[in-house]
Amino acid sequence: MSRPRPLVPRPDLADTVGVVGEFDLIARVTARAGTAGLAEVGPGDDAAVLRAPDGRVVVCTDVLVEGRHFRRDWSSAEDVGHKAAAANLADIAAMGAVPTALLVGLACPAGTSASWLEGVAAGMAAECAPFGAAVVGGDTVASAPDSDSVVLSVTALGDLGGRAPVTRRGARPGDVVAVAGRLGWAACGLAVLRRGFTSPAAAVAAHRRPTPPYAAGPAAADAGATAMCDVSDGLLADAGHLAADSGVRFALRRASLANNFVSGPLPQVAAALGGNPLAWVLTGGEDHALVATYPPGAELPEGWTTIGSVDDGEPGVVVDDVPARQVAADMGEVPGHAHFG
Amino acid sequence: MSRPRPLVPRPDLADTVGVVGEFDLIARVTARAGTAGLAEVGPGDDAAVLRAPDGRVVVCTDVLVEGRHFRRDWSSAEDVGHKAAAANLADIAAMGAVPTALLVGLACPAGTSASWLEGVAAGMAAECAPFGAAVVGGDTVASAPDSDSVVLSVTALGDLGGRAPVTRRGARPGDVVAVAGRLGWAACGLAVLRRGFTSPAAAVAAHRRPTPPYAAGPAAADAGATAMCDVSDGLLADAGHLAADSGVRFALRRASLANNFVSGPLPQVAAALGGNPLAWVLTGGEDHALVATYPPGAELPEGWTTIGSVDDGEPGVVVDDVPARQVAADMGEVPGHAHFG
Repeated sequence: MSRPRPLVPRPDLADTVGVVGEFDLIARVTARAGTAGLAEVGPGDDAAVLRAPDGRVVVCTDVLVEGRHFRRDWSSAEDVGHKAAAANLADIAAMGAVPTALLVGLACPAGTSASWLEGVAAGMAAECAPFGAAVVGGDTVASAPDSDSVVLSVTALGDLGGRAPVTRRGARPGDVVAVAGRLGWAACGLAVLRRGFTSPAAAVAAHRRPTPPYAAGPAAADAGATAMCDVSDGLLADAGHLAADSGVRFALRRASLANNFVSGPLPQVAAALGGNPLAWVLTGGEDHALVATYPPGAELPEGWTTIGSVDDGEPGVVVDDVPARQVAADMGEVPGHAHFG
Repeated sequence: MSRPRPLVPRPDLADTVGVVGEFDLIARVTARAGTAGLAEVGPGDDAAVLRAPDGRVVVCTDVLVEGRHFRRDWSSAEDVGHKAAAANLADIAAMGAVPTALLVGLACPAGTSASWLEGVAAGMAAECAPFGAAVVGGDTVASAPDSDSVVLSVTALGDLGGRAPVTRRGARPGDVVAVAGRLGWAACGLAVLRRGFTSPAAAVAAHRRPTPPYAAGPAAADAGATAMCDVSDGLLADAGHLAADSGVRFALRRASLANNFVSGPLPQVAAALGGNPLAWVLTGGEDHALVATYPPGAELPEGWTTIGSVDDGEPGVVVDDVPARQVAADMGEVPGHAHFG
């Protein structure tokens, strides 16, 4: 990465994890973890024990790396905790489930501020609390000897409450394609921060603390959604995963996307920075919207907006008949993240 | 760390994850992941869905960092996979449960060999296979911009099969203290490798691929064990956790430890290197033995050896009446890892 190291205040030496020590750090962080309603055994043992009312458990892992997924000068500790939790909780919602618990694997330099890590824990706890979920376990180790960066690996668990899981494989020709949540706001906020600005606040906040439409996941499952995933790499890329895994073509409508999703701070920021707000909508990830398909005639739950339909053309995504890759290239974007550039 | 960077062969450039790309890498690694008998939805979706026959799920996370927990010149890719899995599966066993699945959060440099990562996946799959468990999900991201090291965060899930979980809090005065598995072998192997040797093979293998006594965990739960944990930081440190969390004193017997656990390659290597083999037994972690307490008169399951008893003295661990800290200091060791030195 060519950007300079984030300029963050040097932490109080007495407050660094190297001085505080592993066990005091864990005690302080655990005190911020909240309480998981379904936990029989919580943090502090070899493993947590969690009730699984559905008789199945939904589980996923997402890794956030300092300097790639967050910067300490752009996001507060609480922001990082909210964002790390949200990325995982959205994956749980995308299966049609409700989050029940988080576990956190943390690698951090000995010089990391323990107070900063408490802030991360508090942010995670706050993001989980509406579900009665909390951090129930984890592990804390020193970063690699060659690294001065924090790595957070978060695992989320969820409960299906009797619903069938909604996978990526069930989209059928004739289905409706719909989205819940925001598209492009986090990418817009990142563009603002990259230019050195901190406003408009709504855009920057969307980058720092995504607000996935959690309830829309189980609601989609209840309404008969045939396929679903969360939008973490951008709509074109993630709709592409549904299309590929289901073996169908997604025909999206540009007008529907432009009319319903170019909103909030997007037009203003795009005008100021000379960009195309629709590019953010189509290729911006990290808002953790949900994209799903519904059988023809299904009544969409609250918060879902139709953006196109499924047909039996060659598997992939088209926008007004233009292939996704061409659409993205025309906007100067590639669909989805290149994680190893 | 003052040691030089591991000398590993430069990978074939065409085989690096930066060239192979995230999606091909995931496909190759997933092909090695094995099949989890309880998985309804496995790798490749937003989250995995796993049956939880007990109605509860046991879950834990452990992080392994290159240069701290493994070195690529000391351990093969398969070794690293085995070791990363074993550290977690032992935590599941220590609750009295049987492993059902793993998830893996991976941060690695773009220059990492994809074949090496396939080897890690194969090692994990092999360690899980006896339980019908497998890797059911995960996430792969690029390392921090300042790091050329691999970070593996592994989450394990397990099923209690109707057993009550065995926590760290249930030891009572009068209980018997017992250990299953090896103590000090991995530390002995590490000492061998640090001196530049690669034999005796049994010691080096113990460092590379620990062999936790998995079946001894559920067996202990069935036999009425009152408290249990795995030995990952050394016997004195981990028995200390049980003692502290239960509010009791563990009185260990040196003769029992010396007679039963100074075995295999330990005496020979200690003689050659001029060390005390009992120091490895008392303070060496990473064999992932299990230490547990049983009510007086309980019949110990196969593989468990009595090493002392619980009394109502000041909470802590003593060996022949000498406090653990003093015992360790006399041997030139500190009990347990200092994770942020």
